[in-house]
Amino acid sequence: MEKLVSSRRIYDGRVINLRVDQVELPDGSLHQREIVEHPGAVAILPILDDGRILLIRQYRHAVGETLLEIPAGTLAEGEEPIECARRELLEETGYTAESICELFKCYLAPGYSSERIHIYRASKLRMTGSRRDADEYIELEPVTIHDAESMIRKRQIQDAKTIAGLTFYLWTRGSG
Amino acid sequence: MEKLVSSRRIYDGRVINLRVDQVELPDGSLHQREIVEHPGAVAILPILDDGRILLIRQYRHAVGETLLEIPAGTLAEGEEPIECARRELLEETGYTAESICELFKCYLAPGYSSERIHIYRASKLRMTGSRRDADEYIELEPVTIHDAESMIRKRQIQDAKTIAGLTFYLWTRGSG
Repeated sequence: MEKLVSSRRIYDGRVINLRVDQVELPDGSLHQREIVEHPGAVAILPILDDGRILLIRQYRHAVGETLLEIPAGTLAEGEEPIECARRELLEETGYTAESICELFKCYLAPGYSSERIHIYRASKLRMTGSRRDADEYIELEPVTIHDAESMIRKRQIQDAKTIAGLTFYLWTRGSG
Repeated sequence: MEKLVSSRRIYDGRVINLRVDQVELPDGSLHQREIVEHPGAVAILPILDDGRILLIRQYRHAVGETLLEIPAGTLAEGEEPIECARRELLEETGYTAESICELFKCYLAPGYSSERIHIYRASKLRMTGSRRDADEYIELEPVTIHDAESMIRKRQIQDAKTIAGLTFYLWTRGSG
């Protein structure tokens, strides 16, 4: 365990905040911890009726690349993760899901970020046509299970939540 | 694509920096992007000679919990990822690896962080006894493949790189 000695706020932003804590370890030594505060997020593995997985392709300014990912987004204040999953799926893809269930949740970068992401599987999808996302330019890319496997093996998918969600799904699918 | 309009530096730290960029989308609209700059990281899936996987348990101040993870660490300046993997494996577990190969690399939180992590499988492990890590309190926890599977299913493993690395390994193991 680490005992908090002092905390300095550096930045309060639109999505993330930054603070620097000083902590004391059991041996009495003092260490600095740079902490990104994040409200939490959801990601959705959308399974189309024909078994294909609906991926999205979008430019990511933070890494300077266009990435292939599962749909995802940040929790709004007071929003339940499952409601956020339905909202982000609709906004980013135009689909609603009759069936949605949590696969797992995890911390993305627990060395410095408080962000926890809930990962859902969504199925029985229906296209509403009302896709909308003012802040993002997103291309839909449905891929077969076979293609998804191959894209992971060929390192064409480079996003951690997408690799974790897809490999978890591929690996548990056989065992119900 | 997004065109950079302006960039404001907020913080230059020990592990991470923070900047806020203003970007212009193709439709001319302006958006703010909060970006955590990170030097990159490695994680290692250490496979003991008896087939068990060596996990570590450590307290993570950013999330306020003790997590079960694969060994990992941040790239030092100019350090090759594979050298960093050998160094972190030794520092955190006391083991050296005769065989080490990259499984995949990925971005952990490309919505706001530049961090890319290289994930290695390490085998033919030899205990040197010279474990050392001044900054961290780490317990070693070797688990069987069966236990690792069960810990993911029971949500006892909550770290994204660990879930991605383990499920990738479990899923590709059968197919060579």
